[in-house]
Amino acid sequence: MVGKQYLMTPGPTPVPPQVLAALAEPIVHHRGLDFRPIYERCLERLRAVYQTASDVLLLAASGTGGMESVVANLCRPGDRVIVVSAGRFAERWVDIARTWGCTVERLAYEWGSSPAPEDLPEALERMGGAKVVFLTHSETSTGAVADVRELAAAAKATGALVAVDAISSLGAVPLATDEWELDAVVSGSQKALMTPPGLAFVSVSDRAWEAGREATSPRFYFDWRQYKESFQKDGDSPFTPALSLMMGLRVALDRYFEEGQEAVLERHRLLSTAVKEG
Amino acid sequence: MVGKQYLMTPGPTPVPPQVLAALAEPIVHHRGLDFRPIYERCLERLRAVYQTASDVLLLAASGTGGMESVVANLCRPGDRVIVVSAGRFAERWVDIARTWGCTVERLAYEWGSSPAPEDLPEALERMGGAKVVFLTHSETSTGAVADVRELAAAAKATGALVAVDAISSLGAVPLATDEWELDAVVSGSQKALMTPPGLAFVSVSDRAWEAGREATSPRFYFDWRQYKESFQKDGDSPFTPALSLMMGLRVALDRYFEEGQEAVLERHRLLSTAVKEG
Repeated sequence: MVGKQYLMTPGPTPVPPQVLAALAEPIVHHRGLDFRPIYERCLERLRAVYQTASDVLLLAASGTGGMESVVANLCRPGDRVIVVSAGRFAERWVDIARTWGCTVERLAYEWGSSPAPEDLPEALERMGGAKVVFLTHSETSTGAVADVRELAAAAKATGALVAVDAISSLGAVPLATDEWELDAVVSGSQKALMTPPGLAFVSVSDRAWEAGREATSPRFYFDWRQYKESFQKDGDSPFTPALSLMMGLRVALDRYFEEGQEAVLERHRLLSTAVKEG
Repeated sequence: MVGKQYLMTPGPTPVPPQVLAALAEPIVHHRGLDFRPIYERCLERLRAVYQTASDVLLLAASGTGGMESVVANLCRPGDRVIVVSAGRFAERWVDIARTWGCTVERLAYEWGSSPAPEDLPEALERMGGAKVVFLTHSETSTGAVADVRELAAAAKATGALVAVDAISSLGAVPLATDEWELDAVVSGSQKALMTPPGLAFVSVSDRAWEAGREATSPRFYFDWRQYKESFQKDGDSPFTPALSLMMGLRVALDRYFEEGQEAVLERHRLLSTAVKEG
């Protein structure tokens, strides 16, 4: 697995010196005027990476916290959901959804293989439909990339919500949140965005906001509504943000768009091909 | 409120250059051998700051996430709990406990005053006892410090568990977790420990572990057991840790003990007195 040196490792990627330098800048006050432009810039740039006009929320947590926020905000106990699973990180969706009282079906594949989108409609019909279909874009434990676009299309055709773990893929593998009608996409700072770990991101579609309004599961720190309301009211984050990481993220996102999203994705594609070919 | 320039602000304190420099060090792999000594050293030093021989857990979250972990791990829906409240941050305990289905009583004081420990036994008796008594050590919104030692003693006499928000006090105001028999004490990186925000700490007493085993609330990222098991099994953290913040925290804790805990506490006492006297 030579690829492990590049992107598919479960660990963080190397952080560029410019981003590390930003982490070491004296810290601003997170209720002060210096903070808001940093926060707004990060959110705006993240929406561009996600290719979405909807909200992207920024949490001080690792990716798993972002995943749990999806389950806590979208699901009620007893909801039937399905996880398309071909590796260890998909199984994390299973664990979290069970923890939150969902009835979980699995559409399981051998680890290392890519899920076949054509299997999903039948699986959904067999189980009588699902509230949410949980996907894993790049299965970090094996390096396999799922065809999220086709899987999402199959799920949407049945009216299900689509949630995607894009923790190790966003920014490195093409993903079009709005075009593919993805309802909640989770990512983190420490992979393609090349910032140290500790920040999670979640995009929330209009349909996901609607489902969130009906959800009854207890949630406070991971309550999406708090993030939206605090930003709308004060341009602020509801809880003390991980400021220095956000200062690093801002620099990393500026670098990302200086290179250009197309160029970054192409670089990752070439790298991945080179790795696969040895 | 001249004091706001020093410690009582809801924002982070200034971070020393040595800690900022540690944040900018190239990042180690969190599943690698370099990480474990950093993690172990942080946990060991935190236990010393907390003055506890029990576990201190380290979460990638802000302090509110640590507070929510206390409620999610100690309480079941319907549990009667009491919050001793004299300010905005105590009201956060109220909000979180209500969110998680607890029946919440408040022993409320005017904002800015210090709660009177002698009122607590009567309040507990009136409500027929409480599963948990929630306290706020330094009420950041007003600067008032509560007599946690006496409040805890009154609570323990009734068999209640005691949970303390020490986010802005730990390391600056004397707090003896074991001697005062505190069951869960929450703190964060960004106050007296002078590290950027993004790390929460929670001490867990034996009684708190017992209550946790009986708790039924859904929790995954904030499930204390995951942190304990992962550390016991692999010396590791269960989810990607906020590595760079932890690298900063290690330096900050080393500096703390180089100066000496007594000396740091005395420095804060003198500062606080000077502020009060104008």
